[in-house]
Amino acid sequence: MNGAQSLIRTLVRAGVEVCFANPGTSEMHFVAALDAVREMRGVLGLFEGVVTGAADGYARIAGKPAATLLHLGPGLGNGLANLHNGRRAHTPIVNVVGDHATYHKKYDAPLESDIEPVAGSVSGWVRQSDRVADVGADAAATVAASMEPPGQVATLILPADASWGEGGEVAEPLPVRTPAAPDPQTVSVIADVLRSGEPVALLIGGRACRAAGLRATSRIANATGARAFVETFPARLERGAGLPAIERLGYFAEQAAKQLDGVRHLIVAGTGSPVSFFAYPDRPSDLVPEGARVHTLAGRGEDVVAALEALAEEVAADTAPTVAEPAPPALPSGPLTRKNWAAVVGALLPEGAIIADEANTSGASLPQATAGAPRHDVLTLTGGAIGQGMPVATGAAIAAPDRPVLSLEADGSAMYTISALWTQARENLDVTTVILNNNAYAVLRLEMQRVGADLSGPAAKTLLDLSSPALDFVQLAEGMGVPASRATTCEELADQLRRALAEPGPHLIEAMVPAAL
Amino acid sequence: MNGAQSLIRTLVRAGVEVCFANPGTSEMHFVAALDAVREMRGVLGLFEGVVTGAADGYARIAGKPAATLLHLGPGLGNGLANLHNGRRAHTPIVNVVGDHATYHKKYDAPLESDIEPVAGSVSGWVRQSDRVADVGADAAATVAASMEPPGQVATLILPADASWGEGGEVAEPLPVRTPAAPDPQTVSVIADVLRSGEPVALLIGGRACRAAGLRATSRIANATGARAFVETFPARLERGAGLPAIERLGYFAEQAAKQLDGVRHLIVAGTGSPVSFFAYPDRPSDLVPEGARVHTLAGRGEDVVAALEALAEEVAADTAPTVAEPAPPALPSGPLTRKNWAAVVGALLPEGAIIADEANTSGASLPQATAGAPRHDVLTLTGGAIGQGMPVATGAAIAAPDRPVLSLEADGSAMYTISALWTQARENLDVTTVILNNNAYAVLRLEMQRVGADLSGPAAKTLLDLSSPALDFVQLAEGMGVPASRATTCEELADQLRRALAEPGPHLIEAMVPAAL
Repeated sequence: MNGAQSLIRTLVRAGVEVCFANPGTSEMHFVAALDAVREMRGVLGLFEGVVTGAADGYARIAGKPAATLLHLGPGLGNGLANLHNGRRAHTPIVNVVGDHATYHKKYDAPLESDIEPVAGSVSGWVRQSDRVADVGADAAATVAASMEPPGQVATLILPADASWGEGGEVAEPLPVRTPAAPDPQTVSVIADVLRSGEPVALLIGGRACRAAGLRATSRIANATGARAFVETFPARLERGAGLPAIERLGYFAEQAAKQLDGVRHLIVAGTGSPVSFFAYPDRPSDLVPEGARVHTLAGRGEDVVAALEALAEEVAADTAPTVAEPAPPALPSGPLTRKNWAAVVGALLPEGAIIADEANTSGASLPQATAGAPRHDVLTLTGGAIGQGMPVATGAAIAAPDRPVLSLEADGSAMYTISALWTQARENLDVTTVILNNNAYAVLRLEMQRVGADLSGPAAKTLLDLSSPALDFVQLAEGMGVPASRATTCEELADQLRRALAEPGPHLIEAMVPAAL
Repeated sequence: MNGAQSLIRTLVRAGVEVCFANPGTSEMHFVAALDAVREMRGVLGLFEGVVTGAADGYARIAGKPAATLLHLGPGLGNGLANLHNGRRAHTPIVNVVGDHATYHKKYDAPLESDIEPVAGSVSGWVRQSDRVADVGADAAATVAASMEPPGQVATLILPADASWGEGGEVAEPLPVRTPAAPDPQTVSVIADVLRSGEPVALLIGGRACRAAGLRATSRIANATGARAFVETFPARLERGAGLPAIERLGYFAEQAAKQLDGVRHLIVAGTGSPVSFFAYPDRPSDLVPEGARVHTLAGRGEDVVAALEALAEEVAADTAPTVAEPAPPALPSGPLTRKNWAAVVGALLPEGAIIADEANTSGASLPQATAGAPRHDVLTLTGGAIGQGMPVATGAAIAAPDRPVLSLEADGSAMYTISALWTQARENLDVTTVILNNNAYAVLRLEMQRVGADLSGPAAKTLLDLSSPALDFVQLAEGMGVPASRATTCEELADQLRRALAEPGPHLIEAMVPAAL
């Protein structure tokens, strides 16, 4: 057995079933080994950003890691932005980066570069597997490292000779640490804070954004009057009828300031203390209201759901959560706008859907429009590196072949990783992409004003404009084998969305939504 | 004057006229400053790999650096592969990476990441400009560092508060070191080697691949009987009628071994000793024939043209170079094949064209087909990170608006940075892209056999196949505003190429060339 086979067999034994790949020459033995170990499914991406984003989306839904397969330093570079998003999502990812043969590195061949420091910028754990006999054990360690609570990118650098050499040994899975149980003393102190009568807000994140955490949070809020918020960009947020609809903390600092206004105590659970996404001249980076105290109920690596449930038992033993009624919005009519398209989505969203949300500025009305829709998951842009939505949707569809995936995507962001569509077509994934086309980097028009930069000049205007030439996403999708159509009215969007959701396989709808400015 | 304005004014004063940009919120003051300093031309890319590749192509033709503008660590990551290629091309690039405000970094906001080690993996020089008053001087130092012979990526990390703060100071350009003059003693020793009567090969690279270096090399070869070769992937190779047609060293190690077979002395000038692109089991990484001695006439940072001319004066004072006759190939006819398409290009290539060559396996017959074409430049894939050709063509067209640019592009490679087409349309660049569509990662089919991996299984075959679904590059191009057509015969390719070359602005031709396998 060669090293590549020992790697794949070890991954399979540890429960890793999918490898998203964009291989090169140094990874050819890994590719060949996929035929020796058929339990591993290889999924090809035409660009590494698709590969890494898909691994992120897969694990957010599957609850266990996928592997990647990247080609040397440049392949890692191409995949880096979505590994960054995966890092911020605390997603377990087994990130396999092929390297030159160990003895070849000193020759400084054209593709030689220093992989480790680049991998280190996004990984919680990095190892290079230099000896064939170690590859299996290193693979088992990589899987376990990726699942270290709350989850992280674990990178295994695999030299070509460790891959092709004979003498590989399959390793048993390593135990994975379970998240730490809540500290009763902490729960008790925070219960006292909630009973103090002072204004309190509760900010939840990570695993707390799933049903059990949301219910406990709603009970606490109902019993104590505390305001409750979900972190701004949750990796996976469960929503819809039957679940508490807890508001997300706003993206813009001034929204968050309003939400937290007057709060004296901020309890954080499964996330960090809130900070501004960007710095702005003369505005604070720290979003905790002045004079308020921050109390950590559970850190990201702790069992946040158990902590919230323990807290609820203390302060809300007899209180029920408030859950959203089944109340999809009415179908709007007339020309599409930045705001009304979301109601079409809310009206037609099927049960059990997964929404990959990279609608950005066009998505402001989405949470309200879908709060009463059937139960669904929302996967958000956790790390702010755009080009994440379409790959994440791709991976989510691989993880959950029986659930419809809705990929809501801003035009500018779509162009970073557009070839995700090809992988969706190749794997016949049930993904419906809705491109919100406003012909602009609309968020930057907003941000330019907010940072106090002057938007009035032609050069600046030009750099934020995507209308010259206009992007035709129908042609782009069809060029990659995905059936596509264009909607300019709510009625057209509804018709096309119904059809796309009814038919298996991928579809794309280009929704023309004029920019605000 | 704010920091951003002092940066741009300093760049302009140092001769930097173009900034390829994909900015975000932290770069908004830089964008606004483009209106205050109209001498700097901002060119938008929809993806950072386009931005960095265009900066590489620009400088290869302009002979001076362009600036980039990238958004934080993830933007740098997206641009990393083409910075890697630029590093291998020894291209001067002023790589500006925006960062969070200095005081904001400690909050670990979602887009925060460690930029410096990632930049360091592709840069010869990295500086962070933390104080507004230093930004101008740091910018001048960045330009000078980028032009340090033979040229390199110089990265300037620009925090948002250094950009927006008042108190910026414009700095004067710094002197740039000229390449070291040839050492007479070295020239004399190598002249003796050439006169020894033993078999000698001369391998040239860098600046020696331009007219003067090629002429001196040809004279030396003619006078002494030495074999002469150009490095495998030159950044810029001048070719065509009136210039010596010196063969490139082969990409595959076995080709190179044949070319160098029996050589006792290998003289290198402006490049390194030849090494195998990848390692292969049981094959040497070092391509210098066993027992041969390597003599360095001039290193990459030295004046290699002067060294070759001095050597020619010693050993070939009365010998003329052999130059290619004007002899374009005859136009072939019938169905396109992997080999005959290049003759169509050779037959129709206009005077002064720039070829960005990322045709990969489909391009094997290109050098022969274009040797007798009118004089032109060839820009190659220097670092092996695919997705370089279309961005490089874009930058070259900005540098030389009066020269036709021909972008010869493999299908698989095209998909990494396909949005370069949009920038070509937006800037109305005279680029004709010919996609060599063989529906496969054909190079990997070859490499899989060469590394001894088994290609016969369905999983491996699938991961190298691009035919399901087939990519339609005509639709992809039209979706980004570039007129496009498809050719399946030599006659169609000739018709479409004539038309594309005759009309200004970008065009794309999808040439269907069946794969070898």
